[in-house]
Amino acid sequence: MTIDTSSPDPQSFSSGPLLRIIPLGGVGEIGMNSTVLACDDDILVVDAGLMFPDPEMLGVDIVIPDFTYLYENRARVRAIVLTHGHEDHIGALPFLLKELNVPVYGTKLTLGFVKDKLREHELDTSAELITVRPRDIVTIGCFQVEFIRVTHSIVDGVGLGITTPAGRVVHTGDFKIDPTPVDNQVMDLRTFTEYGDKGTLVFLSDSTNASQGGYTFSEKEVRRGFEDIFHKAKGRIVVATFASNIHRVQQIIDVAVMYNRKVILNGKSMIANAQIALDLGYLRIPPETWLKIDALKNLPDEQVVLITTGSQGEPMSALTRMAANEHKQFQIRKGDTVVLSSKMIPGNERAVTRIIDHLFKRGAEVFYEKVSEVHVSGHASKEELKLLLNLVRPKFFLPVHGEYRHLVYHSQLARKVGIPEENIFILEDGEVMEFSEEGARRAGVVQAGRVLIDGKAPGGVETVVLRDRMKLAHDGVVIVILAIEKLTGRIVSGPDIVSRGFVFEDASQELLAEVKQLVLDTILVMIPEAKGDWSLVSARVRSSLKKFINKRMERRPMILPVIMEV
Amino acid sequence: MTIDTSSPDPQSFSSGPLLRIIPLGGVGEIGMNSTVLACDDDILVVDAGLMFPDPEMLGVDIVIPDFTYLYENRARVRAIVLTHGHEDHIGALPFLLKELNVPVYGTKLTLGFVKDKLREHELDTSAELITVRPRDIVTIGCFQVEFIRVTHSIVDGVGLGITTPAGRVVHTGDFKIDPTPVDNQVMDLRTFTEYGDKGTLVFLSDSTNASQGGYTFSEKEVRRGFEDIFHKAKGRIVVATFASNIHRVQQIIDVAVMYNRKVILNGKSMIANAQIALDLGYLRIPPETWLKIDALKNLPDEQVVLITTGSQGEPMSALTRMAANEHKQFQIRKGDTVVLSSKMIPGNERAVTRIIDHLFKRGAEVFYEKVSEVHVSGHASKEELKLLLNLVRPKFFLPVHGEYRHLVYHSQLARKVGIPEENIFILEDGEVMEFSEEGARRAGVVQAGRVLIDGKAPGGVETVVLRDRMKLAHDGVVIVILAIEKLTGRIVSGPDIVSRGFVFEDASQELLAEVKQLVLDTILVMIPEAKGDWSLVSARVRSSLKKFINKRMERRPMILPVIMEV
Repeated sequence: MTIDTSSPDPQSFSSGPLLRIIPLGGVGEIGMNSTVLACDDDILVVDAGLMFPDPEMLGVDIVIPDFTYLYENRARVRAIVLTHGHEDHIGALPFLLKELNVPVYGTKLTLGFVKDKLREHELDTSAELITVRPRDIVTIGCFQVEFIRVTHSIVDGVGLGITTPAGRVVHTGDFKIDPTPVDNQVMDLRTFTEYGDKGTLVFLSDSTNASQGGYTFSEKEVRRGFEDIFHKAKGRIVVATFASNIHRVQQIIDVAVMYNRKVILNGKSMIANAQIALDLGYLRIPPETWLKIDALKNLPDEQVVLITTGSQGEPMSALTRMAANEHKQFQIRKGDTVVLSSKMIPGNERAVTRIIDHLFKRGAEVFYEKVSEVHVSGHASKEELKLLLNLVRPKFFLPVHGEYRHLVYHSQLARKVGIPEENIFILEDGEVMEFSEEGARRAGVVQAGRVLIDGKAPGGVETVVLRDRMKLAHDGVVIVILAIEKLTGRIVSGPDIVSRGFVFEDASQELLAEVKQLVLDTILVMIPEAKGDWSLVSARVRSSLKKFINKRMERRPMILPVIMEV
Repeated sequence: MTIDTSSPDPQSFSSGPLLRIIPLGGVGEIGMNSTVLACDDDILVVDAGLMFPDPEMLGVDIVIPDFTYLYENRARVRAIVLTHGHEDHIGALPFLLKELNVPVYGTKLTLGFVKDKLREHELDTSAELITVRPRDIVTIGCFQVEFIRVTHSIVDGVGLGITTPAGRVVHTGDFKIDPTPVDNQVMDLRTFTEYGDKGTLVFLSDSTNASQGGYTFSEKEVRRGFEDIFHKAKGRIVVATFASNIHRVQQIIDVAVMYNRKVILNGKSMIANAQIALDLGYLRIPPETWLKIDALKNLPDEQVVLITTGSQGEPMSALTRMAANEHKQFQIRKGDTVVLSSKMIPGNERAVTRIIDHLFKRGAEVFYEKVSEVHVSGHASKEELKLLLNLVRPKFFLPVHGEYRHLVYHSQLARKVGIPEENIFILEDGEVMEFSEEGARRAGVVQAGRVLIDGKAPGGVETVVLRDRMKLAHDGVVIVILAIEKLTGRIVSGPDIVSRGFVFEDASQELLAEVKQLVLDTILVMIPEAKGDWSLVSARVRSSLKKFINKRMERRPMILPVIMEV
């Protein structure tokens, strides 16, 4: 159901100005973050992120929010505001900008990543990209948006202070409170406090780590882990990490310089992101330290640090190819030290541990999250979340950026610091919240959900297609081919059996002969008129084959009778 | 290559008696544990376990070791000895007993589970099941096998002390050193020590937790976690755990009794295993405590404990159905407390966390490993592993029961306690080790590997079938159907296009029309003689469609031209 927000509900619960907040993604999942704010005739979009597919989303490359609501209200969309440059906040932008020509606001590095992304998508958009700095305030329709510096696992992240006719909204974006960030740019807690002092109507805050007690460690803590490893390593060092984590890359470079090693960057996104960060002044590499991969052959082992992508065990990534000995320019060998400086994202554990095993087999020493201190999270833990809640002291609280349980944990924290239960709302994608000075209420839903992107086909992968893929994946397909004379129902060719993903045909001749005979028998007993009706023949053949195969083998392949009338 | 161990290698490195050890499974993977010992003309098999499939093993139900070596040497196989009743140690037994009629030795509960399994497989075997007790010694060919009590996450587990003409072998089975086991039957460290004193040639030990520092907690530690939860819970309590963990079930029952609650067992394997353990005296439930699920309706919420399967988020399990509100007799509702008393096995995290989210949505309070103390491991950590190595003091060490990195970590522990590097061997499935009083050497490989079981088809799923399933899963299948007149090459019917898992056909009429035209165009430009050759037509059609679809959509469906000559 689409709620037409242009014609206010006659039963409106408020006489004053109204603010609507609609998450289109990011509540109920980690990923595809996107939130809509609407007041008067203006719509503001905060972030447009993607999500990586669940394993059962077969063949799907990425998942983006269903933006139908924005397309249906395109005339009212004034701008997209980005909090930071992670894929789960900017990854759906090319899809959105294909449809909407609106300005995009973001900090310098965020827009640097965006430009690279638009280039990659070959998107020729005239949408304006507007660079902002922390403490900038821009007016977008009825919204006044202030950008507030936060610390996170990517440089140049911001939260948002949004003043609307109905009241103030504060959105943290993704954050942790890092007291010692690598670039010394601490989180702007003062401005968050100001919003608390002025009075904040609604607070949206990052729930990713709401189940983690205590404080998240500073990014700088990782440096000690690297120093230990670099100190002991006698041969080459390979570090795999997220390409967007510029501070992590900076620290690895700094430690490399300290230990007189040269740095080689490997992997497409690692090189691209580093170049962007370097160009924009967010990364410093002494020119004599950064070498191309060709330089490897002239470099003594003890001077090599290779920083690479692939920390999640992605099938085609540089690290995976190294582990499988399929990387053209770099082979892992005894004496090498490999560091996976990253969290194993749930769902990726088997892929990552398989790579670790391969690295061990090639003789490398391997350090990773479970056995070493080479990674810290970028998201705030319980104490930090409570601190922010206490600084902002909102009237209403919307936990965002988390799966359902994370939102529940975050709600529990909010109740602990004194926000009444009835002022906390756990939403699902597409749920409409209305806020005014007089109160808040759930006000229906708009179309929302997940769009599964496979290749560059227009639109997403439909449910029926996915269901078929699952069936095909499970037991394969059996195709029965027959040509029938239209008038007599006589079989003039076939039946031929073609199968894929069912049995190894060379070794199953006997079974396939039985299947053929079964098809003939099935048709034989049909009355002549029925034999001429291909849809009836098809249904009978499918049904008897299904029974036979299930009984014989306990398998349920997809059965496709192909009947030609000639 | 199969090594014929019946004709000794003329280059034998030893004049004295020879012992061969061949792991057929369990080194390089957690699961499908099975080890072969051979001396003189006798073969002894230790365990015959299954493994659950990796996600990319599409449609595969279970994975078992390739037992070809045993089948080829069937006349020499004297017995199968089981260490305990977990699936990864007994799950492949029905398959092995279909081929081999040999006695199976195990403790009472282990054989209780085995009998249930054979019944389930409807296996009519005359193989003798021989019950042993800890400290029993049985003679099997040239082997004297002593059963040594260990503590583990299943009751009635044993390690093995095997005396052979070549020397003594000690095999831990799966173990941890639990100082306070629930049944007060502590691990028989004294007998392990005796083997150390008498002198042990080869030691095989459980590597599962070789990367975990310190000691593994006692099973009894979990009780405190349960007491806390039961103390606070006001409504019904649901506990999901492994059906085979009888001591866990016992503790839940004990705490239930303490808090005046009744117990309902739910899930097929939970009820079956509890019944077996009850019948054999390994589980005690006061008769008035154990109720059938029908009793629920007359029971006040604060008296209910439901113990259920499904802690791994298995799709059809009781807990999954409860979370999805599809369980006929039990619906989760506000006020319920749900405890997942289990480890999330890597690969299952997404399924498990999805269930946790659903439980939260239904209003339950949920406790699980990450946020509560409701599970301990059944495998020894570093300090326990070193202790066992020091007690047994073997000449040679084979770490077993682990993925490659676990075996490496275990080797590092062995070196720390003084076993020389050259006396430690990390093996892969099928590798043959030879031991004698004079030394040890790697002596080739026998056929080994993984057999993928799908349904009840004979043999496993072949690689080509699995590869096709992956392709089908990724982008579906496009079938092009044509009837061609044999002599003229004229198209008499078609082309028709049938696709599954590719695009939603109703919404893709335009695309499919283009595909049809492309097929016609492709054939049109072929010379008349070529048109009559269906294999050539098929190849051309496949190639041009592949190019078109890839260019247009960046998808690579399987393309199957079906060409009938009439």
